[in-house]
Amino acid sequence: MRRLPPDGAIPIVWHSTAGRRRGMSLDTTVTAGKAPTAELNAAERLADMAQSDMRRVDALILDRMGSPVPLIPKLARYLVEAGGKRIRPLITLATARMLSYEGDAQLKLAAAVEFIHTATLLHDDVVDESDLRRGRKSANIVWGNAPSVLVGDFLFARAFMLMVDAESLPALHSLSRAASVIAEGEVRQLAATGDVNVSEASYRAIIEAKTAALFAAAAEVSGIVANRTEDEIAALDRYGREIGLAFQLVDDMLDYGGLSATLGKKTGDDFREGKVTLPVTIAIAAADDEERAFWTRVIADKDQKDGDFEHALDLISKHGALQATLEAARTHAANAREALSGFPDNVWKTALIDLADFVVERAH
Amino acid sequence: MRRLPPDGAIPIVWHSTAGRRRGMSLDTTVTAGKAPTAELNAAERLADMAQSDMRRVDALILDRMGSPVPLIPKLARYLVEAGGKRIRPLITLATARMLSYEGDAQLKLAAAVEFIHTATLLHDDVVDESDLRRGRKSANIVWGNAPSVLVGDFLFARAFMLMVDAESLPALHSLSRAASVIAEGEVRQLAATGDVNVSEASYRAIIEAKTAALFAAAAEVSGIVANRTEDEIAALDRYGREIGLAFQLVDDMLDYGGLSATLGKKTGDDFREGKVTLPVTIAIAAADDEERAFWTRVIADKDQKDGDFEHALDLISKHGALQATLEAARTHAANAREALSGFPDNVWKTALIDLADFVVERAH
Repeated sequence: MRRLPPDGAIPIVWHSTAGRRRGMSLDTTVTAGKAPTAELNAAERLADMAQSDMRRVDALILDRMGSPVPLIPKLARYLVEAGGKRIRPLITLATARMLSYEGDAQLKLAAAVEFIHTATLLHDDVVDESDLRRGRKSANIVWGNAPSVLVGDFLFARAFMLMVDAESLPALHSLSRAASVIAEGEVRQLAATGDVNVSEASYRAIIEAKTAALFAAAAEVSGIVANRTEDEIAALDRYGREIGLAFQLVDDMLDYGGLSATLGKKTGDDFREGKVTLPVTIAIAAADDEERAFWTRVIADKDQKDGDFEHALDLISKHGALQATLEAARTHAANAREALSGFPDNVWKTALIDLADFVVERAH
Repeated sequence: MRRLPPDGAIPIVWHSTAGRRRGMSLDTTVTAGKAPTAELNAAERLADMAQSDMRRVDALILDRMGSPVPLIPKLARYLVEAGGKRIRPLITLATARMLSYEGDAQLKLAAAVEFIHTATLLHDDVVDESDLRRGRKSANIVWGNAPSVLVGDFLFARAFMLMVDAESLPALHSLSRAASVIAEGEVRQLAATGDVNVSEASYRAIIEAKTAALFAAAAEVSGIVANRTEDEIAALDRYGREIGLAFQLVDDMLDYGGLSATLGKKTGDDFREGKVTLPVTIAIAAADDEERAFWTRVIADKDQKDGDFEHALDLISKHGALQATLEAARTHAANAREALSGFPDNVWKTALIDLADFVVERAH
């Protein structure tokens, strides 16, 4: 139920083509446009289209994570180099293009969005005591909790400096509110951990806060700096929010479905941490007495034995909970597409619509 | 070497008169003006003068720490109710008054300054694995590290929302830069922990970043919202920075001089944590071979036995290191007073000048 960078959940082609093509500005051998379009999925196509903007964002990211204190860029680089699709800043860049925005404030805001996201990942790993992130040892394991907390704070602060440079108070409002809502969502999730009675509504409140709020702000800020109407800004917010919900639902599904090798993290983390996500909520709601006793033991009492995760998978499958979670994700992806309906058609709108579908497709 | 709320370092009268008078808006029985002025120290007098402004700041603080997630206000309140003199927001309020600023942006900025400070305390306690804060169990001990990290993030985000409400991009720039510098200072301190070769220059760079930067911004933002000249804003920054340096030097001195009961935290924390502050830097610089071996064992090897702290106190005393630290603090307090010399005289300027002296006096 963590904001999982879904690298591993998408085909290897991501890493081998678009990943390198769009890749960190550390990589100067850009190979854009060489692979036939047919090979690319929607996220890769979008990354391809936004390539020149993203290169400027990557340069900003590298520049602004700089510090005379060596451990800071070292630790920040460790995370940034690990990859991640930069889906959030990509949404900022693509929505700005869809609106034919002529300025460059969106570049700073996109970098700020990625910094907020990275800072949250750092703090999440401390909170969850995670040992893997994006397929590598997480920063808290390599350097300890203390630097992870402090470098997270540094990146938060640098995110706000970037936003100040973008010179839009309403955009600052949107992103600072998102940062506040994210923290609320994380605390809410923490309080719900180990609670077998978490309702679907509570679960939704958690993922809306911890994940969808930043996607929503990432999309909305483009409308803000492009001076769009309130309705248009609300539509962008909705696009981001809905795609964010779909994204997290699929992540939570993959945590019970993917394989460690392809997921880039150990499958079953949520289970082991006692995080009650939608697949489990659904399975518990449909449980008989014996099944309920099982969930209480493994989630509430955190008394887990070999074979328990496999049994949980069986129960989740028996009650069709993964399928139901995927359906919920599909609904949100459809809402995201629908949110863009009022904007004039162009290639960016098409790419953003395709991205909504892709977020769900990666479940397969 | 932590940003120690110096409650216990000042006479009990603080808690029993000004503390209650100025106190959290939770306390509605205001007793202002009843105690004879002669009883008040400079910080209390300033708190007394700024009382009506501070009551509005307290109301903002209580309002903005609110959240539908119960643990958040609960944990935040725990810290806020523990007291603390609010010396940083007091500086914002008093400098704004000194400048005869007519708006009310300084109230939001003062609340933001206190939020940044509180968030940093929360994260510091996680980083230092502290067990006491302001004389009570620290939040990480009561609730664990995870909520402390997340509620700190929440308060950071809320600080930025308050700044956005103050509607000044330059003030936002000043405070977000301070937040970034603070994090850098904390990482620098972390890297220097256990290093007996920390130079006085490194020590100064650390305290300038982790403590003085926020004091500087707290003073500077008043000049910014009051539309003062660059020179005046720089003078305010200098006032805050110098008083912040004096403040931290005295704290670091008190960590080797106060008593647990009056300090509100265990004396000798820096020693136990292997933090090399000025008293130790001075003692190490003057050490003979045997003394150096001692410092290496207790600080670098962290091999501490009963009686080691007392021996450290003896060595610090032998080399006059506390006296030298106090002298350094006096110099910075004098610099702070001097920084205000260009402003027209008024009661607020006098109170701010007296505050600079008080910061050093509390060492006695």
